[in-house]
Amino acid sequence: MVQHIVTSYDEELKFILRRISEMGGQAERMVEQAVSALIRSDAGLAQSVVADDVLLDAAQREIDEHAIMTIGKRQPMAHDLREIVGAIRISNDLERIGDLGKNIAKRVLAVHDHAQPVQLVRGIEHMSELALGQLKEVLDAYATRDHLRAEAIRRGDQEIDALYTSIFRELLTYMMEDPRNITACTHLLFSAKNIERIGDHATNIAETIFYVKTGSQMEIERPKGDSTPTLVAPVGARGA
Amino acid sequence: MVQHIVTSYDEELKFILRRISEMGGQAERMVEQAVSALIRSDAGLAQSVVADDVLLDAAQREIDEHAIMTIGKRQPMAHDLREIVGAIRISNDLERIGDLGKNIAKRVLAVHDHAQPVQLVRGIEHMSELALGQLKEVLDAYATRDHLRAEAIRRGDQEIDALYTSIFRELLTYMMEDPRNITACTHLLFSAKNIERIGDHATNIAETIFYVKTGSQMEIERPKGDSTPTLVAPVGARGA
Repeated sequence: MVQHIVTSYDEELKFILRRISEMGGQAERMVEQAVSALIRSDAGLAQSVVADDVLLDAAQREIDEHAIMTIGKRQPMAHDLREIVGAIRISNDLERIGDLGKNIAKRVLAVHDHAQPVQLVRGIEHMSELALGQLKEVLDAYATRDHLRAEAIRRGDQEIDALYTSIFRELLTYMMEDPRNITACTHLLFSAKNIERIGDHATNIAETIFYVKTGSQMEIERPKGDSTPTLVAPVGARGA
Repeated sequence: MVQHIVTSYDEELKFILRRISEMGGQAERMVEQAVSALIRSDAGLAQSVVADDVLLDAAQREIDEHAIMTIGKRQPMAHDLREIVGAIRISNDLERIGDLGKNIAKRVLAVHDHAQPVQLVRGIEHMSELALGQLKEVLDAYATRDHLRAEAIRRGDQEIDALYTSIFRELLTYMMEDPRNITACTHLLFSAKNIERIGDHATNIAETIFYVKTGSQMEIERPKGDSTPTLVAPVGARGA
């Protein structure tokens, strides 16, 4: 009887983890396609990303419901309980990442007709590569329950934040140079911010992996968040 | 013995709900003070808001740990389990609201030395009043477990989104009129966006209340999110 319950818990956990792994793949693809649509001004691709978001919303609800049902039915303790709670948290972060991908895709139409400076587009592309790298890495760390790798991922977020700060400055400079750039640059600014936040969610997932594996929280102090809120005028802005 | 277990569960739930109510009060205060600091260019007040954010982070962790411990020890079922899961979700939304308040406060220093158009400041002030109204309303609905009120709150979010869209347009217009406005307006744009997202989190909380009370989800379709991502040039922008 105990064996039977244990097996059922394992099966339910396996189901939840498989759905999370699918969500992870979907979230990655949405972000990849959203950035690609932004860079290549591909409105069709952008629209398909926007449409895909309902899949992640539905997956998150399904995982949530299964997780809660499993806690109620199987009453897991200690590490088993942390696995389920971790799944709830991670599916929440993945749903948010999909949402951020959708937000980027929605802006494609707005920047569509504007010529975008090559340097700027490269910066955003590079930033998204870093964020996607963090996401892939953290999904691998989750699959292997590697909490040391999860700790390293949290540190990697600083690079994304630094790049975001430099893109932020650059965008302000372009706006000041020519008011006709303002609308497109504003949307690129929000897109860059969304990518920066994707990095933050990868960091959240890393923290959850650490908690599931060890039962304790990573230290509260973390190198997170962008430093642009206190930035005043960009250096060397011709229009300033 | 059963009576004893039931009482303990109730006591633990009571503890969690009291902490959430405290978090709600703190989150409200942070947002109020952040917007007030932004409007009155009060750097000191902004700094105290930034410093207060650690309190909400700590409260969320404490609630999470208590909630998980309670599930593990008391193994609640059905409505009792939903109460605990709801508490985890709501404390997460309140922590995010505090974070958004902190983000607004961090931008005070950047817009500090710039004269801000009165009309614009009024718009942001009005938007924050609406968002704070939604937050107060949803915390009351939670305290009284009033899921009908929670449904009404979700509908109220549309007004905030509409106001955000008009502020977004106005900010682009100011930037186009004079490049010297760009830096300050960019920070105001992010502040307005943060307020809009506070409304979204109030909506999330409303959905959680509905779920805790009824055991089912509100319909997935909801009037959420801003419509600015697809906005192109603002109408009547002189610089365009």
